[in-house]
Amino acid sequence: MQRTVERMLRTHPEPAFAPADPLSVCIHACVECAQACTACADACIAEHDAALGPCIRIALDCADLCEAASRVLSRQLAPDLGVVSMTLQLCATVCDACAYECRRHAATYVHCDVCAAACRRCTDACRGLLATTVTTYRDRGPYAAAGHIGA
Amino acid sequence: MQRTVERMLRTHPEPAFAPADPLSVCIHACVECAQACTACADACIAEHDAALGPCIRIALDCADLCEAASRVLSRQLAPDLGVVSMTLQLCATVCDACAYECRRHAATYVHCDVCAAACRRCTDACRGLLATTVTTYRDRGPYAAAGHIGA
Amino acid sequence: MQRTVERMLRTHPEPAFAPADPLSVCIHACVECAQACTACADACIAEHDAALGPCIRIALDCADLCEAASRVLSRQLAPDLGVVSMTLQLCATVCDACAYECRRHAATYVHCDVCAAACRRCTDACRGLLATTVTTYRDRGPYAAAGHIGA
Amino acid sequence: MQRTVERMLRTHPEPAFAPADPLSVCIHACVECAQACTACADACIAEHDAALGPCIRIALDCADLCEAASRVLSRQLAPDLGVVSMTLQLCATVCDACAYECRRHAATYVHCDVCAAACRRCTDACRGLLATTVTTYRDRGPYAAAGHIGA
Repeated sequence: MQRTVERMLRTHPEPAFAPADPLSVCIHACVECAQACTACADACIAEHDAALGPCIRIALDCADLCEAASRVLSRQLAPDLGVVSMTLQLCATVCDACAYECRRHAATYVHCDVCAAACRRCTDACRGLLATTVTTYRDRGPYAAAGHIGA
Repeated sequence: MQRTVERMLRTHPEPAFAPADPLSVCIHACVECAQACTACADACIAEHDAALGPCIRIALDCADLCEAASRVLSRQLAPDLGVVSMTLQLCATVCDACAYECRRHAATYVHCDVCAAACRRCTDACRGLLATTVTTYRDRGPYAAAGHIGA
Repeated sequence: MQRTVERMLRTHPEPAFAPADPLSVCIHACVECAQACTACADACIAEHDAALGPCIRIALDCADLCEAASRVLSRQLAPDLGVVSMTLQLCATVCDACAYECRRHAATYVHCDVCAAACRRCTDACRGLLATTVTTYRDRGPYAAAGHIGA
Repeated sequence: MQRTVERMLRTHPEPAFAPADPLSVCIHACVECAQACTACADACIAEHDAALGPCIRIALDCADLCEAASRVLSRQLAPDLGVVSMTLQLCATVCDACAYECRRHAATYVHCDVCAAACRRCTDACRGLLATTVTTYRDRGPYAAAGHIGA
């Protein structure tokens, strides 16, 4: 689906708030991670293993926050860069926490291993986007006044 | 991301409620369509063209319903096949309606053309899944009693 | 929050697609049910009782579908009444299924009893809205052509 | 619906991660704000006024982030308090930004006035919860190690 993400960015009447490459990678990573976390929470519930409680919890949070992040990042009209930056930082944090929990169970449950890898890709993509846009969009105009990416 | 979707299905402790191939294709199509519709609604708002009102509306509905469908389909534990079937039918219907609206503007706005194609893939994937699972899972046990796919 | 729902409907530039009273009741019921199901799924996971697996599953589906329904119903611009009708029918069905599962555990777990009641209110509100709008909006104009509520 | 939110908290097998009163108020405020923002974005689109572009944008972001926040706050099992805290801070920030945009149009469009009030209630509720839980849950055990509310 990354090609579709890229084509939607390229055909938008407004320029993207960040370089198209790290932005499309990040949207794709958020969407992939949200799906993996929804599936992993379901798989963990089906394992009937009480030790997985915290893993299920953080996977459900991670799915919700990645999904919200993918939507915020998919919009290019009049972004509030303070909100975008905090969204990326929260997304990176929850993916980190979910990857940590999933890795603890990765030797026993392969779905936790697959999910941890998706979380790790999403953390990296969020941090990559935060790093890139600092440089490029710091003084972008009216919306930059309300905050800026990667501050 | 389709490889991740497939790996999550394969490593789940429960068998998938449908053959892994049309199921993973459908999950992927729902997620791709949801993202495209979120981006297309935003692009249409940025066009400031009053004729796009109905297109924005159906794209927002389509994003919400495709996202919900992708989550329902991502769960394999104890599915209510009546709910799954209605979810697929609704998803196919809203994608059809969104593709119809987007195609009306596809010559003027390329993002509508890209979005219409994603909607069309999702409609096809939902109908493909409804067709496949009729045959395979009609008498699958307790949950089939509450309904069945593609009835 | 129902007063806010009503005020948003009254101040919208477009007339609501259905009478304001059953519509605001239904939006409110969907939102209440989505929250109750999210909380009930979490509570059920924390009970560490394998018998609750199907209850957790349907509660997660119910939360996602009620949330999507609350959004579709909150929009008054250019509704596709076929999509709205199917959304209401699916929402009523998943709430019914979740109420059924929750009631099976209501004597043991009070949160299941509270959740079942929220689901029941939502089913009733969806069916009430489907019944009302059949009569009132059958021939409402261009969008009615694409389908109509409660067909 | 606040009574249902409170009852779900009281009947959960785990103690709430924060005092039940500011927590239930905050969950309710998030859910109310998400619905108001979804409806206000739709109403703004229907006004066909190009000046509303940034208002529509931030309202859509606000709906998505408030909804995700309401879900994170509705879960009491094994919360990651660092994630919860950042979620509250982001929710307060986006509600602030949406209230600011809506207030600019409140004299012209009453729906913007209603939405700004819901956003303001949500900002206050998030900040109230951040303030309360600092005091009460700072040293709550294993999950506090990963972060704490209102740090």
